[in-house]
Amino acid sequence: MNVVNIGLIGAGTVGCGVIKVLGQNLDIIEKRTGIRIELKRIADIDPDRKRPVDIPKSLFTTDARELLDDSSISIVIELVGGTTVAKDIILGAIDKGKNVVTANKALLAHYGKELFAAARRKGVNIGFEASVGGGIPIIKAIKEGFVANKIISIHGIMNGTSNYILSRMTEEGKEFDDVLRQAQIEGYAEADPSFDIDGIDAAHKLSILIMLSFGIFLDFKKIYVEGIREITPIDISFADELGYKIKLLAIAKSKDGGIEAGVYPTLVQKETQIADVSGVFNAIYIVGDSVGPTMLYGMGAGMMPTASAVLSDVVQIAKNMETGDSHTSLPKLYNNKNSSFLIPMSEITTKYYLRFQVEDRPGVLGQITGCLGQNNISIESVIQKGRHLGGGEVPVVMMTHDAKERDLLSSLKAIDSLQVVKSKSIFIRIEEL
Amino acid sequence: MNVVNIGLIGAGTVGCGVIKVLGQNLDIIEKRTGIRIELKRIADIDPDRKRPVDIPKSLFTTDARELLDDSSISIVIELVGGTTVAKDIILGAIDKGKNVVTANKALLAHYGKELFAAARRKGVNIGFEASVGGGIPIIKAIKEGFVANKIISIHGIMNGTSNYILSRMTEEGKEFDDVLRQAQIEGYAEADPSFDIDGIDAAHKLSILIMLSFGIFLDFKKIYVEGIREITPIDISFADELGYKIKLLAIAKSKDGGIEAGVYPTLVQKETQIADVSGVFNAIYIVGDSVGPTMLYGMGAGMMPTASAVLSDVVQIAKNMETGDSHTSLPKLYNNKNSSFLIPMSEITTKYYLRFQVEDRPGVLGQITGCLGQNNISIESVIQKGRHLGGGEVPVVMMTHDAKERDLLSSLKAIDSLQVVKSKSIFIRIEEL
Repeated sequence: MNVVNIGLIGAGTVGCGVIKVLGQNLDIIEKRTGIRIELKRIADIDPDRKRPVDIPKSLFTTDARELLDDSSISIVIELVGGTTVAKDIILGAIDKGKNVVTANKALLAHYGKELFAAARRKGVNIGFEASVGGGIPIIKAIKEGFVANKIISIHGIMNGTSNYILSRMTEEGKEFDDVLRQAQIEGYAEADPSFDIDGIDAAHKLSILIMLSFGIFLDFKKIYVEGIREITPIDISFADELGYKIKLLAIAKSKDGGIEAGVYPTLVQKETQIADVSGVFNAIYIVGDSVGPTMLYGMGAGMMPTASAVLSDVVQIAKNMETGDSHTSLPKLYNNKNSSFLIPMSEITTKYYLRFQVEDRPGVLGQITGCLGQNNISIESVIQKGRHLGGGEVPVVMMTHDAKERDLLSSLKAIDSLQVVKSKSIFIRIEEL
Repeated sequence: MNVVNIGLIGAGTVGCGVIKVLGQNLDIIEKRTGIRIELKRIADIDPDRKRPVDIPKSLFTTDARELLDDSSISIVIELVGGTTVAKDIILGAIDKGKNVVTANKALLAHYGKELFAAARRKGVNIGFEASVGGGIPIIKAIKEGFVANKIISIHGIMNGTSNYILSRMTEEGKEFDDVLRQAQIEGYAEADPSFDIDGIDAAHKLSILIMLSFGIFLDFKKIYVEGIREITPIDISFADELGYKIKLLAIAKSKDGGIEAGVYPTLVQKETQIADVSGVFNAIYIVGDSVGPTMLYGMGAGMMPTASAVLSDVVQIAKNMETGDSHTSLPKLYNNKNSSFLIPMSEITTKYYLRFQVEDRPGVLGQITGCLGQNNISIESVIQKGRHLGGGEVPVVMMTHDAKERDLLSSLKAIDSLQVVKSKSIFIRIEEL
């Protein structure tokens, strides 16, 4: 039997999950792998806080350095979060020759390159399965399962809060603000929800999947990110009428030697698997050149699912240690292309959903289609409703054929300056899966 | 750079896929892993057959022993299929100290215990990701991703042919025989389709997932298997009316220290993720005690997806070899319970869809519900249609509450002996996911 001592830094929700899962499943892990995991020490700034699991007080310290200095601990689990203290902890652990397991997507998105380089130098591993998709084994799937594939595209629902809000807006026809407030009360959204609803969290995760799929760490600031604050029930309802749902997707597509990448709301056809991913669930739809289309689905967050992923990393590293290999599974950054690898959003080509708020009188449609036509944008379908005799404002909804985003933005600029157009025009990209 | 020589035995569809994927992606595999895979030799009884890839004739031999005797080859890919020659090849390769990669579910279902034991003795590995779910990395997910979970249940659509036939019957309202014939013409079903449509192939795969999830190789003959030949458009249509689809599922559930396991057609609610898995796609829905509900979806068969899985095993084994560990990833059979671990079907409890063909006259419903009631079966809903005045035969459809299968069979025996019942009553189990 191979005993592996681990230390846990950060005994919050996921940390308590790790302790709980170990309590439940230590024996079956040992039966399956021959590895016995011993939780040796826990560092947390508040040992006395009420927690959902019983933890012997003697395990606690308030000083993370105690764990790093404990030579019997070979794997440190970092669940502090954020990009400051957590970074110091991980670099400190690596420096002491310890392996690291982390769920910290923000940290990896910003400093992954540096952290992996440090780990490689020291010959230790960093496990980060829990950083994307909670309990879904997506890191392992891309890194190992699809290793013989060129990745063609990734479409991920990777933020449970946003998906929960959009799902409820769709089911209940309510405004964004109302659903957000409700989600906050129910604990599905943070008091400061920006990371989730503005797409930043999903972009962190996307940058990790891009690293694994394309061998490059993109400058995080260059990834296009657009959240769901501007999504309205009226657009959800028009999308529904057209056969679509609105989902916040994290997208990366291989195109002409580069990639298109971004996080933004999209229309996806109702019959697609990803359109059915509701509530707090996550799913990552990946197309590889040999495996074809695949999707992995599950709970993208939460105490127990995330702990499941953390412990799968612990076991994997413990196995590697057994054979004297603690770092060959570090991802390789083999792609030497510079940031030109990322195709600017202005250059992408896709279909668009457009909504214009216009004066309700003859000739308006002609003016709009004129602006679109002048910019090489052709229209696939139009919905025009609520026409009354006389004045008033009515929505006009269009779906375009494939168009270049630069052209679309030019046409919208022209359209928004028309006298008959009463407010800023709405565009939402359409993804065909 | 680490060069690994491989030998391929069986250059059929999947074998050609392996050659094709290597042609396309050898370089990216090397960039990602530092491993260069060299296809050293191919054994096939017919080197001259027309194939979808160009293969240098010099690679071919008709004698598999040549590969086994080639000491430069460290991994043998067995894609012969069947349970006779393939078994000899794999045992022969193991005996020579070679690692094995196989897609052969039938062989593993019948002789897995023996093959893994032989590999363990020799210190070599057997990779079998391609044996279940084609390109879907389900073996890796269960074995590594969910290692910290007790598996609560598995519901798999694991046979593309059956799912394709049921999907078309559902979409087109056609009879089983017509759709099967069409599927055979289109190449979606074999000339002898029995393995697929009678559930045997899915049961082979289920036994492998049970081995990984519960640490036991069940006696394959003891797994309950029922195919889709008896499914009719009328039952698909009634199921639809009740909010369900009919799917052939491979099921394993942890219950009271044992497991319920079997392959059979089931009613699943339309809103579930698995109900939307159409055509030749596969999906495996797994619930773990920490990860919660998950689903992996993708192409369950075919040249390229299966090759993707075969090569992921080759790379994994090559990595293990690099560190001198070629066998710790062999699954452990830690479960010492005997075949009593498998709960007999007569003891399972579930809801049932029932269809009776009865004489169209008063009192019939009372006779049927009487028989059910006497056997502790209570009814959730009834559909009775097509009532005419006078005689004639009409269908009566019922959904039961949870009932024990033994009780259900007793009641159906009584019902089928009633004079008013005109043909053998139909029952289909309902799965709530």
